[in-house]
Amino acid sequence: MKNLTTGNRFQTRLEKIWDWMAKEGIALIMFEDTEGRRDRTVRWLSGHPGDALLFLSVDKKSLLVPWDINLAKAFASADVMIPFSDFDRLPRKAVRGAVKLFKIPSGSRIEIPPETPYPVFLRFVSELTDFDILCREWSAVLRARNLRAIKDAEEIKIYRKAADITNRLIDLLEKKARTGKIKTEADAALLIDVEARKNGCEGTGFETLAAGPDRSFGIHSFPPWTAAPFAGTGLSILDFGLRLNGYTTDVTLTFAREPDDHQEKMLNLVERAYKLALSMAHNGTATKKIAVAVDEFFAKSKKYMPHALGHGVGLEEHEFPAVRSRGDNEWVLEPGMIFTLEPGLYDPLRGGCRLENDILMTESGPEVLTNARIIRL
Amino acid sequence: MKNLTTGNRFQTRLEKIWDWMAKEGIALIMFEDTEGRRDRTVRWLSGHPGDALLFLSVDKKSLLVPWDINLAKAFASADVMIPFSDFDRLPRKAVRGAVKLFKIPSGSRIEIPPETPYPVFLRFVSELTDFDILCREWSAVLRARNLRAIKDAEEIKIYRKAADITNRLIDLLEKKARTGKIKTEADAALLIDVEARKNGCEGTGFETLAAGPDRSFGIHSFPPWTAAPFAGTGLSILDFGLRLNGYTTDVTLTFAREPDDHQEKMLNLVERAYKLALSMAHNGTATKKIAVAVDEFFAKSKKYMPHALGHGVGLEEHEFPAVRSRGDNEWVLEPGMIFTLEPGLYDPLRGGCRLENDILMTESGPEVLTNARIIRL
Repeated sequence: MKNLTTGNRFQTRLEKIWDWMAKEGIALIMFEDTEGRRDRTVRWLSGHPGDALLFLSVDKKSLLVPWDINLAKAFASADVMIPFSDFDRLPRKAVRGAVKLFKIPSGSRIEIPPETPYPVFLRFVSELTDFDILCREWSAVLRARNLRAIKDAEEIKIYRKAADITNRLIDLLEKKARTGKIKTEADAALLIDVEARKNGCEGTGFETLAAGPDRSFGIHSFPPWTAAPFAGTGLSILDFGLRLNGYTTDVTLTFAREPDDHQEKMLNLVERAYKLALSMAHNGTATKKIAVAVDEFFAKSKKYMPHALGHGVGLEEHEFPAVRSRGDNEWVLEPGMIFTLEPGLYDPLRGGCRLENDILMTESGPEVLTNARIIRL
Repeated sequence: MKNLTTGNRFQTRLEKIWDWMAKEGIALIMFEDTEGRRDRTVRWLSGHPGDALLFLSVDKKSLLVPWDINLAKAFASADVMIPFSDFDRLPRKAVRGAVKLFKIPSGSRIEIPPETPYPVFLRFVSELTDFDILCREWSAVLRARNLRAIKDAEEIKIYRKAADITNRLIDLLEKKARTGKIKTEADAALLIDVEARKNGCEGTGFETLAAGPDRSFGIHSFPPWTAAPFAGTGLSILDFGLRLNGYTTDVTLTFAREPDDHQEKMLNLVERAYKLALSMAHNGTATKKIAVAVDEFFAKSKKYMPHALGHGVGLEEHEFPAVRSRGDNEWVLEPGMIFTLEPGLYDPLRGGCRLENDILMTESGPEVLTNARIIRL
């Protein structure tokens, strides 16, 4: 079989996974990106943007098993592609197919994703008795997620472009809110949808959250956006991302009009928390340390932030590095990481405010890619 | 603690789960609706539309553990609500909290969702050594999914209303395509987005798929919609749903303009396959039998449908009953089921066509709720 992946843009990434497989003594790995079990590592390693399984063998071959073979032929690269329907859309049958294709010797270690449900894992084990089936947190999936936390030059280039489009859109949103062209949540959300496509993005990175003064108390407004008023008296939150070549930005603006004293205090605290977090974002700093500092800053004013301070962004809206105060967070900032800082405060009566930007760590420190801000109307 | 759920619209549903718990000898159940592990049973049993854990104890109490407590207070009902952050957003800690709250005797059986990953299951077991932790396919989650396959009177009422809004929108889409007002995929997708909110829907049920002639070869177009031409010469597919009170419709229109002979044949086969499927949809009929008949119908013309014939719809876009030809499908049609029939054919060069409607099984047979069709321009 021909090796279509040689020399293509996925080669460097694949080599890292293949090296890891050799070191771990694993003959075959399955990645899964399907409804209910999303893992954009499949796209990261093959370019395929839809539902699929991806198999890698330790002798450096790849097999893509897409739900839609026509889509795969248009977008993806892999040594071999076989439609998922050839395996009755059953991952266990696809593993059998990969074993046969790659002539995996019986007794070999085969790794399936750590997200595999326990009852499904039991079925794998009982049907593939001639192999050693691994399902572990420390896995190729986790290895890939860790690798994905550090963006390569091509990914950073995409992010600079995506941030540029996002920033021009932020300016446009501010202008239209100031001139009264944005009066409803729908006005804001639809403008984002249209501008995304006009500028060559795949779409939004996630469903836009546009919450006017009556609904901004929710961390993530429900429904995400409606025909309700936006940017009127009080606090309005607009949280959106643009997806370019698979990679999403993630920003949050707060629009404040005639805030009362308590709302003004919330705005002020969130702005100061954001500045505090950014001032601590150095290479080598533990993200937990930054998140704890922000929690403590809010606590001094008897305020509480009900979510994490931030998260990595990339092919998924939420990826590594973690940026939160929980004890198990051991992430340390490194050049190439792109992550959000998004302090926010929410009050059932007064509404909420959040400020979120995307930060790229460079060799010389943090570079704020996006230009989201609190907009006082 | 007060029992807020008594007499509310969730009571009947909760009773069925509590009965099941008693029969299975399970003291505590956890449902999980979080990023990466969606289960709208939480909304079905509590009304909460966002991320949360829901615990039910066999003595008929409920505990909701929402990510956003303000949102829960506005939308949900449960005996007790405790923010997820009180448990460091860790399900295992929340189980400990529920055990304490409900005074679950040590040694009791506690069930966690069947979607729990194997490595996570191991952690549950090793941390909750004083309980019998169950993680089985045959579970409360599956029981609830089976129950959800049969819609109750209130749900059917919602569906009739959602279908009515969907049908008026289908007529509007046809009119605007005929008069040249819809020229791009964006025109179609944005009209759907706007009309959904205008008519009181929460939004679309899933990301609209609008694929003009150059992109309709994909079962699910990627990107879902773009600024590309739509409804020009050839075949264009429009697959969308409107979400009302949590429940989504799911329809697909194909717009055909000046189809060539091969495209005309595809359209004709899909229409005939749809009619065949509908003619077989009787109470008591196995859905596999219908799906196999459609597969065989296409095979006679040497065509192949690369996806399932249909699926149940409800709070999730894809739910029970399954409507496909795979061997493990044992679903039989019953009154109260709402499901799609959506035969489709796809050709890398000629594009694709699909026709999808939502069918309600009544005591007297199938009722086609929606009015999607192949529109010849």
